[in-house]
Amino acid sequence: MNYIYINDQLLPSAEATLNVRDLSIQRGYGLFDFFKTIGGRPIFLDDHLDRFFHSADEMGLEVNFTREELKSMISNLINKNNIPDSGIKLILTGGYSDDGFSLSSPTNLVIQQTPLIIKNLSDSGIKLMSYHYQRQVPSAKSIDYVQAIRLQKQMRESGAGEILYYYNNVVGESPRSNFFIVTDNEILTAENNILKGVIRGKILGLNVPGYTVAERDFTMDDLFAAKEAFLSSTTRQAHPVVAVDGQPIGKGQPGPVVREINRQLFELMEKE
Amino acid sequence: MNYIYINDQLLPSAEATLNVRDLSIQRGYGLFDFFKTIGGRPIFLDDHLDRFFHSADEMGLEVNFTREELKSMISNLINKNNIPDSGIKLILTGGYSDDGFSLSSPTNLVIQQTPLIIKNLSDSGIKLMSYHYQRQVPSAKSIDYVQAIRLQKQMRESGAGEILYYYNNVVGESPRSNFFIVTDNEILTAENNILKGVIRGKILGLNVPGYTVAERDFTMDDLFAAKEAFLSSTTRQAHPVVAVDGQPIGKGQPGPVVREINRQLFELMEKE
Repeated sequence: MNYIYINDQLLPSAEATLNVRDLSIQRGYGLFDFFKTIGGRPIFLDDHLDRFFHSADEMGLEVNFTREELKSMISNLINKNNIPDSGIKLILTGGYSDDGFSLSSPTNLVIQQTPLIIKNLSDSGIKLMSYHYQRQVPSAKSIDYVQAIRLQKQMRESGAGEILYYYNNVVGESPRSNFFIVTDNEILTAENNILKGVIRGKILGLNVPGYTVAERDFTMDDLFAAKEAFLSSTTRQAHPVVAVDGQPIGKGQPGPVVREINRQLFELMEKE
Repeated sequence: MNYIYINDQLLPSAEATLNVRDLSIQRGYGLFDFFKTIGGRPIFLDDHLDRFFHSADEMGLEVNFTREELKSMISNLINKNNIPDSGIKLILTGGYSDDGFSLSSPTNLVIQQTPLIIKNLSDSGIKLMSYHYQRQVPSAKSIDYVQAIRLQKQMRESGAGEILYYYNNVVGESPRSNFFIVTDNEILTAENNILKGVIRGKILGLNVPGYTVAERDFTMDDLFAAKEAFLSSTTRQAHPVVAVDGQPIGKGQPGPVVREINRQLFELMEKE
C-alpha cells in the first residue's frame, strides 16, 4: 500500500483525491517539484525545496507549511512507504476556488512517492526532436505540460525519445530536462527563459579538466556544431544526446565529457 | 445539495473528486466547455458540444460518451439540481496516468452546474488591460489559464476588469471572451489563433443594418481607432469595452451597436 500526503493528511493512494473545485482541475493552475531518494536518503533536498518555494512565489501561491514541516512530512512518507529508491513529487495547486477561476487560500499540497531506479546513462544515447516553443512561466516549475504531452505522438513517430524546445533560433530546454552542449573548450547550457534544474546547477559547479562550464544562451547552429550534447535531470543525471531532428551531434554517439560529468554527479549523490 | 457527474456517476458535490493521478493535477492537461441554462433550458447546447468534441480532437483526448449520452447526463443533472438559471461546465482530463505524464485511457469527465444569472450588459462598460500573449493551443478550449490567473492582481491594480491578449500587434481574444471592434461600417473579430466562441459565432451570423459583420485579424491601432468595442461570451453576451490600457475606445462609453447586438442575441436565446 502506497501512501500520499494531501495537505497534512497521510492517506492510502486510492483515497488521495482532490475535489473537482481545485484550480488544477478547473484551470491547470499549479506547480511541483521532484527529487529522488537513494537508499531512503533524499538527494539535493534543500535545492529542490528552494525551487519549490521559488515556483510558488512566481505563481502567487502560498505554501501553508514551513520548510521544516515539509521535511518532516517527507521523512514520514519515506518511513511509511518504504521505497528506498524513489522519486518524490510535491504538487502545489491553486486550491479550492469558489468561482472556478480566482486564486483561493489555502492552496492544496500533494506529496507522493513512486519507485525510481537511478541508472548511469553514459552509454545510452537519446535522440531529440526540436520544437519551436517558449514555456509560459519559464522560471517556475508549473504543471503546464500541454505542449509536451500533445507532442508525444509526433515525437515517437519521428523516432525521438525527447523534445528540445528552441525559440527564435535560441536553444532552451527539454520539457523535463535541461540541455547542454560541449564545444572544444566549453560545456554550455542556456541562461535565460528556462527552468533552472537542480542537476543543471550541480553541473555548473563541476570542475571538468580542459573545459569551462558556463550558462550562456546559444543557437541551434551552435548545437549542430557541438562535439557532444546531453540532457540533465533528476532522473537522467547526464544523458548523452546523439542526434537532433535526425542529424547526428558530434560523432553521433555518447562521448567522454558526459561520462566524466556522470562520474562526478554520482560522486556528489553518494555524499548526500 | 448540488450534484456533479464524475464520468457516469452522479455524486454530491462534496464527493466529486479525482484521484491525484489525474493528468489535470499532474500536468495541467485537460479541456472544458461551458454553456448556460435559462429557465432550465440549455442555450446553444449543440454548438457547445461540437466545440467540446473539437477540443478533445485537438488535444488527443477521447470522449468516452456519445453526444446523446452527454445530453442525457446533462438533462439528468438539470433535473436533479433544479438550478433553472445556471452555467454547466464539462471538463475532460487526460485521465489517470500510471507514470504521471503519459496520456491514459479512459479520460475523466466532470459535469458540474452552478447558478448563473444572465444580464444584459449593454449599459455597463468594462475596461481592459492588454497583454502580449498567444495561447498554446488556440483552437482548443484547454484548461490552461496560467497567464490569466497570474495576471489577475496586476489587472485589478490597473483598474481593469478583464485582460485583452494581443500578439505581434495583432489583437486576439480575452481569456474567457472573444473581442470585437466596430468601425464605420464593419463589426470585426479576430480570425486566427483564437478560440472560436459560440456567442462569437452567433454574432457573425447577425444582420446589423449599416454594418458588415466579419472575422478578420486587426491591429492594436485599429482597436484604438474603433468607434466601439465589446467582449462576447456565454456569460457576458455582448459587453461594451469603454477603455483599453486607460485609453478610451470611441466615446469612452457603451454604444448603440453593442446594444443592437445584445437585442438580437437575447432574441436568439429566447428561441432556444
